[in-house]
Amino acid sequence: MSLLKGRPNGHILCVGHLCVDIISLCSTYPEEDQKVGTTTRRNRCIDQRWQRGGNAANNCTVLGLLGSKPYFCGTIAASHERSFIMDDFAKYDVNTEYAVVHEGCECPASCVILSEATGSRTIIHCNKDLPELAVDEFKKVNLSNFSWIHFEGRNVSNIREIIELVREYNSSHSESQPIIISVEIEKAKPEVEVLVPLADVIFVARDYAAYKGYTSMDDAIANIQLLAMPEATVICPWGEMGASACTGKKAIVRSPVFSPPKVIDTLGAGDTFIAATIYSLFEGKSLQESIRFGCKIAGAKVGVRGWEPLRDIITNIMHNFHAHS
Amino acid sequence: MSLLKGRPNGHILCVGHLCVDIISLCSTYPEEDQKVGTTTRRNRCIDQRWQRGGNAANNCTVLGLLGSKPYFCGTIAASHERSFIMDDFAKYDVNTEYAVVHEGCECPASCVILSEATGSRTIIHCNKDLPELAVDEFKKVNLSNFSWIHFEGRNVSNIREIIELVREYNSSHSESQPIIISVEIEKAKPEVEVLVPLADVIFVARDYAAYKGYTSMDDAIANIQLLAMPEATVICPWGEMGASACTGKKAIVRSPVFSPPKVIDTLGAGDTFIAATIYSLFEGKSLQESIRFGCKIAGAKVGVRGWEPLRDIITNIMHNFHAHS
Repeated sequence: MSLLKGRPNGHILCVGHLCVDIISLCSTYPEEDQKVGTTTRRNRCIDQRWQRGGNAANNCTVLGLLGSKPYFCGTIAASHERSFIMDDFAKYDVNTEYAVVHEGCECPASCVILSEATGSRTIIHCNKDLPELAVDEFKKVNLSNFSWIHFEGRNVSNIREIIELVREYNSSHSESQPIIISVEIEKAKPEVEVLVPLADVIFVARDYAAYKGYTSMDDAIANIQLLAMPEATVICPWGEMGASACTGKKAIVRSPVFSPPKVIDTLGAGDTFIAATIYSLFEGKSLQESIRFGCKIAGAKVGVRGWEPLRDIITNIMHNFHAHS
Repeated sequence: MSLLKGRPNGHILCVGHLCVDIISLCSTYPEEDQKVGTTTRRNRCIDQRWQRGGNAANNCTVLGLLGSKPYFCGTIAASHERSFIMDDFAKYDVNTEYAVVHEGCECPASCVILSEATGSRTIIHCNKDLPELAVDEFKKVNLSNFSWIHFEGRNVSNIREIIELVREYNSSHSESQPIIISVEIEKAKPEVEVLVPLADVIFVARDYAAYKGYTSMDDAIANIQLLAMPEATVICPWGEMGASACTGKKAIVRSPVFSPPKVIDTLGAGDTFIAATIYSLFEGKSLQESIRFGCKIAGAKVGVRGWEPLRDIITNIMHNFHAHS
């Protein structure tokens, strides 16, 4: 049932976006024109912190916590945020050999507002002038190092060409296990659909499903399958409904949500689900086990603030994971 | 009618808070849990920028643009934002000789969301560990340099002692013109009221008036006058209603609002009103002329993004200001 025949030798590479998240945790989401301070009465700013962000960068954080020594490939601005970002990648054991540094541009940033009352994360993202990853920049990646490459669904025209390069590599190395290609379809933009037929594994975000008018996980899976390769795996997480997934014409498998005692911080929950699901598939678990593992780790993540407290939780969960291998 | 007898020799000193404002301009105020990007469909992040902020720091910016070479006194964190802050003070000709640098703490920051649709500014401020100005730190200020000291209404117990120091200085230098003491009463906190009886000029913000349940400018002025010194001047700006002011038992004077063609950015509008009104009073203009000048400059400010475009507008307005001197 597993996507990979035997335990792969290579690493996981995540290709996508990197930014700084400036995160404000408030007791409730501010009303328009409100002034919220650390000691204001009606609403309060409980904490403010910087966090390395971006979907692919978050995928790497979680893969790093799971112990898989992932690689990040994407562009980085040579602005004063850079040392913070590189130190933080190192902290989570992420290899940045294929990060491409650009001089003379600003680091993309997200202002994120977390509401303690509802667990919501409101994101205001701005990317002024950081170039997207170019095809030639990706050509420097030594593909023989990798068994799985995950692509964030953005920078579509370049990523399309980049995936073609990986497919060509697979064709010309048919003696070895092909590199698995996964994509995340999240952004509510028409062009991201182009990536669906190119991937072995497609993660469809609920935001994208809503944008397309898909009414349920099954509806989203069925519609994406129409565009995907016949044997492709389509995985669809759906917030408090858990996740469903399906490979080719097989039956849909499902996982419930694993809610923490209290939802604290949902920022990066979707990225966590993807990373943990990839990790599990990579380790040879079944699709059903893998989305369950994804839901479990994502559930643990939303129960804690930021990434660091996830370290101990993952250590405990991993103990069980390997015990049942 | 003017507060000062003749053109004073000294400078204006503003005492208060300094932070970094991380400002996101969105087409509309984000809904809770929304994800807003530079190219998203429903709502868009048009710009993101850093700006030196804090009420007293903003007062200094506007006084600097008006050409009065103000001084800033307050605490600054020795974090990586410091060079940005000091460069920006220099750009507006603000003297930072009395800024007190603290090692090992974080720079207070505000995440500010501006709505292009409504002109609103929503502020989420966090100050983790930057100490407030201590009385001993203020003692280093050479008071003979100054003719006017403006205090932001915060750090109340220290500011109370600091104002006493200034009053003692005034008493022991009765041969020279006393230093005028102004305070801004803005924060919705019970303790700021303590500063009212200590000041020659009191700026009462609408936010504070709302907190106290004052229903109009006249109501706010009357209530503040009950606590103020008999000859004190109470000045009350009230958004789109303009401003009113009153000295002692004299008649209330008023100014209409001067709205720009389009409200672009209201962040710092109140600080602009205060700075411009102080500048005008300092230049010997009447209370009525001064609040009108305050409303005019504040109206110009809300019509432009940030501070820099205010430079040319002020040059034009100042041409008239001095022509009628």
